[in-house]
Amino acid sequence: MISRRLSRFLVESRWEDVPAAVRHAATRSILNVVGTALGGSADAALRRSETVLARFSGPPEATVVGRPGRVDCMTAAYLNALAGNVFDFDDTHPGTIIHPSAPVAPALFAWAERQPITGAELLHAFVLGTEVECRLGNAVSPWHYARGWHITATCGVFGAAAAVARRLGLDEQRMLWALGNASAQSSGLVETLGTMAKSTGVGHAARGGILAALLAEAGVEGPEAPIEGPRGFLRVMGSDADAAGVAAGLGESWEIARNECKPYPCGVVLNPVIDACLDLRAECPLAPDAIAAIVVSGHPLLRQRADRPGVTTGREAQVSAQHAVAVALIDGRAGVAEFTDRRVASDDVRRLGALVTVAEEADVPVEAARLVITMRSGERIERFVPAARGSARRPLSDAELEAKFRILAAHGCPGFDPEPLIAALWSLESAPQAAAVIGLARHG
Amino acid sequence: MISRRLSRFLVESRWEDVPAAVRHAATRSILNVVGTALGGSADAALRRSETVLARFSGPPEATVVGRPGRVDCMTAAYLNALAGNVFDFDDTHPGTIIHPSAPVAPALFAWAERQPITGAELLHAFVLGTEVECRLGNAVSPWHYARGWHITATCGVFGAAAAVARRLGLDEQRMLWALGNASAQSSGLVETLGTMAKSTGVGHAARGGILAALLAEAGVEGPEAPIEGPRGFLRVMGSDADAAGVAAGLGESWEIARNECKPYPCGVVLNPVIDACLDLRAECPLAPDAIAAIVVSGHPLLRQRADRPGVTTGREAQVSAQHAVAVALIDGRAGVAEFTDRRVASDDVRRLGALVTVAEEADVPVEAARLVITMRSGERIERFVPAARGSARRPLSDAELEAKFRILAAHGCPGFDPEPLIAALWSLESAPQAAAVIGLARHG
Repeated sequence: MISRRLSRFLVESRWEDVPAAVRHAATRSILNVVGTALGGSADAALRRSETVLARFSGPPEATVVGRPGRVDCMTAAYLNALAGNVFDFDDTHPGTIIHPSAPVAPALFAWAERQPITGAELLHAFVLGTEVECRLGNAVSPWHYARGWHITATCGVFGAAAAVARRLGLDEQRMLWALGNASAQSSGLVETLGTMAKSTGVGHAARGGILAALLAEAGVEGPEAPIEGPRGFLRVMGSDADAAGVAAGLGESWEIARNECKPYPCGVVLNPVIDACLDLRAECPLAPDAIAAIVVSGHPLLRQRADRPGVTTGREAQVSAQHAVAVALIDGRAGVAEFTDRRVASDDVRRLGALVTVAEEADVPVEAARLVITMRSGERIERFVPAARGSARRPLSDAELEAKFRILAAHGCPGFDPEPLIAALWSLESAPQAAAVIGLARHG
Repeated sequence: MISRRLSRFLVESRWEDVPAAVRHAATRSILNVVGTALGGSADAALRRSETVLARFSGPPEATVVGRPGRVDCMTAAYLNALAGNVFDFDDTHPGTIIHPSAPVAPALFAWAERQPITGAELLHAFVLGTEVECRLGNAVSPWHYARGWHITATCGVFGAAAAVARRLGLDEQRMLWALGNASAQSSGLVETLGTMAKSTGVGHAARGGILAALLAEAGVEGPEAPIEGPRGFLRVMGSDADAAGVAAGLGESWEIARNECKPYPCGVVLNPVIDACLDLRAECPLAPDAIAAIVVSGHPLLRQRADRPGVTTGREAQVSAQHAVAVALIDGRAGVAEFTDRRVASDDVRRLGALVTVAEEADVPVEAARLVITMRSGERIERFVPAARGSARRPLSDAELEAKFRILAAHGCPGFDPEPLIAALWSLESAPQAAAVIGLARHG
């Protein structure tokens, strides 16, 4: 009865029961993902996908962040989710490493431009959608990602479906069908990471969520137990999944409150590694030619996801410890400009990156990492970062989030004034029309 | 290099190298699936999905089989694939139990209405698409379906992508990206079987295939090894998959030649069971009240997929041995009319179905089954069917396929004259415009 209990919760949840801290965490997550979508709006993956999808768009009704035109709401959801996740600079749910906002917030904003809702209604649906998404992720982690599932896409479609279904006002039965229709679309392979196809998977999740909800509203029926059934999500895409946890304590704890916003535009496992490099460089810049070897070590996920030597594109570099270490030590920065194709191709970065190896330390948490540099002189320099910037113990401040937003806007949309949008996003909860807020993200 | 070898084959294959028998098998499969789509065009799953998707359709350009309007080609592909598979009456690839045509042929016909192609070009792309789809299915069977993957949807998206990519004339690299973009969308859970969500999964596969090909054409890049990579399709969605088999003997054998068309609108495992019931009834009708117990037994898949007592809808009845046995013994028929909600709800069928149990016989092939009826008198009647109608050893004749087409058209589209469409489909290979053929399927 887990799917049904979850459905009932999604239908019955009241905004007034969502604590203020959760609301603020949701607002921060949304601000962050609109920023990353602005930053991604110039990316080739977005532009090429837009070219294709615009030819098949229905009535123009919804904003593509950072772009001038409008497309139908399912297409807008797809494109904004893609753009929001394309740099891997969006928010991260610890433990699952889901990027919760990219599939859910764009689906809701796009829907809001079709059917008016308030900012508070959007926020509430967002909190509910990310709750479903992250709880499913919790239940199948860590096996799911290790097996090769791109968890942001596979769980994201459920989150987007739940969020939009809530805004449609579906009853419990139809909410259950929305989850069932989402289950039929849950997809995304880790093999696509480092390529544009990864980002399209997140787009599919957002679009698929709207579709799942609309199909359910129209009476397209799904199974009774899409989540816990014998051939449902948890059993097929998980192994010994924690089914009971999916529906335990609903309304008492909120996953979005645990969500983290990244300081660097790359895989979250690299954050403590970059911190260590930047800290070290700030204290004592090392001449790259004087370095003999670099070992980074940490939680097994660090090696599994980011031991990627010899990358050739900015996209691959986002999940390359070799590139991240080299560029952070040389440039003393790790922003969008340090993860471009051009920076990846530089001789200095490639030479230093070739000296980096990645090791596992079973008992180091995922937000921590160790950096050991051996100099040609034989000197050994070590840095251990117990908790990366952006992690639960060191969250970015609201001001830091705003600063990140401005950098992303400048990168993706030169000439765009982000201030009205930033202000509107901070006061989303009191906005009479969510559509008016996202409309401020149009540009050009 | 399997993904790349497959891509090269898809790009280089020549129609003149495809044997006549393979071409005829492809034509039969297409005729069959257009027929099942006509039959499904009145189904609520189709009508409700059409209501939703038509609101988001781009330019009207493509036929929805059995329906009056036009929608954009991606939407048409979705709806026709859904309709083609909704009754489980479409073709079946033995061994994998993929329904190969439903995701692939609708994608191609829809595309043909956007960009003119000949009938032979469509047939060639269809042969290639089903080849990819079924070879992937072979590689992951039987684990994949047993795990809970709806193989028609999961493999179908690759087939549709390959087929449309071939028609777009993509080069080897872009063909590889098309497969990569398909891999990001491969989805479909067995849990949805018996519900409308199953059919939407097949729709997603067809639409997703077109999208994957168009994204690749536009330069949306995918991974180098979406099929055989460490986190690619075979490893994530298979277990000890036969990777080498995917690209072995390409162009020498053709999976579509092994494809089978069903005599009954239900799960293919039920075919020999229904044969046994109909044979028996033709010889000696039994009074249902005189029956004490019925045991059907066969290949383990029979029990795993179709031991489904107490069904309440026609859709569930399609995968219920209990319903199939009861209705075949009572009515002496097993057509579309015998798998409706109304027939399922009848007291006589429910009473007799309650006497049916399903057992496994490890050494019985999937096209065979045994029926043992124990009468209240103690008499025991046994029938063994070694090869069901529609199986490789007893294929439906072309005339039987035509008859099936007419029944389906009459069911789904009362008043529609199917003869021009049947004639056009038989001569598809020489059609100057494939679009003109599918245009004959418009109705109302």
